[in-house]
Amino acid sequence: MTVIDLNADLGEGFGVWRLGDDLALLDVVTSANVACGFHAGDPLIMRRVCAAAVERGVAIGAQVSYRDLAGFGRREMDVAPAELTAEVLYQIAALDGIARAEGGRVGYVKPHGALYNRIARDPGQARAVVAAVAAYDPALPVLALPGSAVHAATGPGTEAERVPVVPEGYADRAYTADGTLVSRRSPGAVIHDPGAVARRAVRMAVDGSVTAADGVEVPLEVRSICVHGDTPGAVELARAVRAALLAADVRLRPFTSPGGPA
Amino acid sequence: MTVIDLNADLGEGFGVWRLGDDLALLDVVTSANVACGFHAGDPLIMRRVCAAAVERGVAIGAQVSYRDLAGFGRREMDVAPAELTAEVLYQIAALDGIARAEGGRVGYVKPHGALYNRIARDPGQARAVVAAVAAYDPALPVLALPGSAVHAATGPGTEAERVPVVPEGYADRAYTADGTLVSRRSPGAVIHDPGAVARRAVRMAVDGSVTAADGVEVPLEVRSICVHGDTPGAVELARAVRAALLAADVRLRPFTSPGGPA
Amino acid sequence: MTVIDLNADLGEGFGVWRLGDDLALLDVVTSANVACGFHAGDPLIMRRVCAAAVERGVAIGAQVSYRDLAGFGRREMDVAPAELTAEVLYQIAALDGIARAEGGRVGYVKPHGALYNRIARDPGQARAVVAAVAAYDPALPVLALPGSAVHAATGPGTEAERVPVVPEGYADRAYTADGTLVSRRSPGAVIHDPGAVARRAVRMAVDGSVTAADGVEVPLEVRSICVHGDTPGAVELARAVRAALLAADVRLRPFTSPGGPA
Amino acid sequence: MTVIDLNADLGEGFGVWRLGDDLALLDVVTSANVACGFHAGDPLIMRRVCAAAVERGVAIGAQVSYRDLAGFGRREMDVAPAELTAEVLYQIAALDGIARAEGGRVGYVKPHGALYNRIARDPGQARAVVAAVAAYDPALPVLALPGSAVHAATGPGTEAERVPVVPEGYADRAYTADGTLVSRRSPGAVIHDPGAVARRAVRMAVDGSVTAADGVEVPLEVRSICVHGDTPGAVELARAVRAALLAADVRLRPFTSPGGPA
Repeated sequence: MTVIDLNADLGEGFGVWRLGDDLALLDVVTSANVACGFHAGDPLIMRRVCAAAVERGVAIGAQVSYRDLAGFGRREMDVAPAELTAEVLYQIAALDGIARAEGGRVGYVKPHGALYNRIARDPGQARAVVAAVAAYDPALPVLALPGSAVHAATGPGTEAERVPVVPEGYADRAYTADGTLVSRRSPGAVIHDPGAVARRAVRMAVDGSVTAADGVEVPLEVRSICVHGDTPGAVELARAVRAALLAADVRLRPFTSPGGPA
Repeated sequence: MTVIDLNADLGEGFGVWRLGDDLALLDVVTSANVACGFHAGDPLIMRRVCAAAVERGVAIGAQVSYRDLAGFGRREMDVAPAELTAEVLYQIAALDGIARAEGGRVGYVKPHGALYNRIARDPGQARAVVAAVAAYDPALPVLALPGSAVHAATGPGTEAERVPVVPEGYADRAYTADGTLVSRRSPGAVIHDPGAVARRAVRMAVDGSVTAADGVEVPLEVRSICVHGDTPGAVELARAVRAALLAADVRLRPFTSPGGPA
Repeated sequence: MTVIDLNADLGEGFGVWRLGDDLALLDVVTSANVACGFHAGDPLIMRRVCAAAVERGVAIGAQVSYRDLAGFGRREMDVAPAELTAEVLYQIAALDGIARAEGGRVGYVKPHGALYNRIARDPGQARAVVAAVAAYDPALPVLALPGSAVHAATGPGTEAERVPVVPEGYADRAYTADGTLVSRRSPGAVIHDPGAVARRAVRMAVDGSVTAADGVEVPLEVRSICVHGDTPGAVELARAVRAALLAADVRLRPFTSPGGPA
Repeated sequence: MTVIDLNADLGEGFGVWRLGDDLALLDVVTSANVACGFHAGDPLIMRRVCAAAVERGVAIGAQVSYRDLAGFGRREMDVAPAELTAEVLYQIAALDGIARAEGGRVGYVKPHGALYNRIARDPGQARAVVAAVAAYDPALPVLALPGSAVHAATGPGTEAERVPVVPEGYADRAYTADGTLVSRRSPGAVIHDPGAVARRAVRMAVDGSVTAADGVEVPLEVRSICVHGDTPGAVELARAVRAALLAADVRLRPFTSPGGPA
């Protein structure tokens, strides 16, 4: 039987501000990437999202980021490796303590925004991030694009070689013929039609492939599919993806147990 | 044999800024109250202080604070209890993760500045702080003034009844006849003469008493003595206290094992 | 002819986050209290709100606050007077520079949230705030409750004696028999019925009075009425107030010219 | 008679933290680059530095930066142009209001750290910065390296064409044969010997040239020389530069009047 995980960003408010509908998304996804306070999220929001995730059996991931509330972690920053490692470690630990207080635990790590994109191509920053994971708990998986530099950063012989990397796909993003994401600046980079997005999710889960922007079928092995939570219609899109996967007899399950990597 | 702990605030820089001489103080104290990023401290400073503390067998405490970098946590803030609990939990967890990555662990909690003073007299905020400790690890002791409202907040029948409260004294602060600190705004509130401060520390440790501002001897049972780290001459003062205690055959030892409360 | 000003808080987003519908409110009010970055607002939001206000002939006020993004400026903080003065001066100046770049200027000052409430009863903090206004431009009016300590802080013989204080009322808040606001913690403190709120606004503007919670008519001389922008139904409520005032032949006009106090 | 300006970064503390000796440097330089709160500086520090600068007839410049307290503005950030313009405008205006409250005014703009380096080579970010200056006061000069992209950004036909750019040199930095700074990562990039630094300052001021790292004399026309304030021995180095310039009959004078560009 085909099994896949659905992940989404949650808890991305701050203070009085909110972004997205956390509770609605928690009823759709199997893994929640919880913001840890550096690009969004504050301790009280983190605690409430963790409580709601535990209640629903949704796995909790640390959505770690550059320190940039004003820019929502979407701006690349030249952070020194030792500092980046310490910042990521701080965020994972803070969320894990809060998750445990609610009966859960951090089960994986999902770098956010500019950090996610940077470590996909920058080996030095990728090593800095996985060094934090290895220092906290080397059994903690990291979500990454199939071709991300995170894979090499955890390869044999590296300090973080025990850190598992879990490949993920984006059902609402266009792919190039070599299996990478089409840049957001290009036309057609984001797919808005719920039906098309849902069909792509099913193809990723069932066939391990995606139709690239040029029409070619590209193999794409992923264990999790990311759905967005902060755009208009996000919840409806996520529900359409979930419904289509279930209709195709795909089982939705966290790639790590909600209680963590055991 | 008389045993006492010496604690001091450490890691109170931020980014390029530094405050006090962390390494010099780590050679004097037996417990390090490490700032957790809310009034001072950043992840890299936290990591370096933890590494140095572990190396020296100095116990690590979470110096938790209101969220106030601009005011160094010295300004009272009306934080809602649920938010305060979540913020304290976040800070303890973040530091503990960093301490563990360096081979140590958070062994106790020391609220900082305005929060420390507020919970000494405000039962609601005191309960909010110990609730965070209880949620993280009910075996984690909290440092508090002998008459602090923290004691009642952890009394029998409370949710935090398993949280130990460890009384501490201030060798360089004047006391009133009822054993409370003379307000900093009063003249003579802070004692600057190293000899006098050292003698008071010995009296606290050996006799369990302190000479109040009006000359009366007041009983003062403490298990730890706080020395300040961020004032001019702070390191010399701390060294004088340590030397005097050792000369009086007092054994200096963390009130909790450096590896934590076991 | 009766003339009144309608003011509301605007520009209270930060980064990706938004609060309230700025453009809709700008079509209702005559004065915009623009957040200056300390409790909400960032430079780009400030600039856009100023541009839209200038376009509509809406006066721009500096909505100054304690430095507290995480608490939205709603938590009282014990800020030292010299620091508070400098912080308020900084905020007024920053917004004024941005307003001028858009062809407008800061025409008044409206302290926000906890600061507004604190200076209504704390003479020292009230003096600290008006000292900032006097230092920037003593002709700049400050909005305050009729009984606020701000009035005494600008009285004859004070350093800020040239600073005008403009009394304002809250059409959706209950009043006590002595003309002060019923605490938000009391039941019935906030009036939600749009018709009732609109009628109260008309009474304030036309009759200079308000019906207190105990049914007594209380005189209340105000030159501006504050409508809220960040609650559900806020825009509809504000529109109802505006429509009722216009229907009662009240002219809506900023209490200061959009170009400033001239 | 040869005239030159000496500028240095000042007011780079935050809250309880301090960096460098502001008062000592104010007795050496003729222009003070005052931090505006984004990488360092808070409103009270800004006010005190401005008061001390006005007292000594030292010109006040807005040391504008990326929003990055944790990284001291030394990390490059991909800030969108409209946002960068608004942020720079906010900082200039805030400091100008504070300077005017102390009887001075902002007389020029000096971008800080990573922003300074980025706009030296990135035309888009350079345009964003000078757009802020043009929006605030097109007569306000901007300090820049001789070959900086800031020059082109203010060239004829641009929106900021009236903004003057004032070339500055670094007496303690090595130069390449084409008149640019040797990267800080290269050995020998920073010159520490006070005598050598002082002699280089005199050559810049008197001869309009500098000896490059390869020994070649390079023409370098500057109207201001930057001395550093935050390194050990910084004040002594700055005093040596000042003494050597005076001994060489160079007159030290702000490149803009302390009262601003008039």
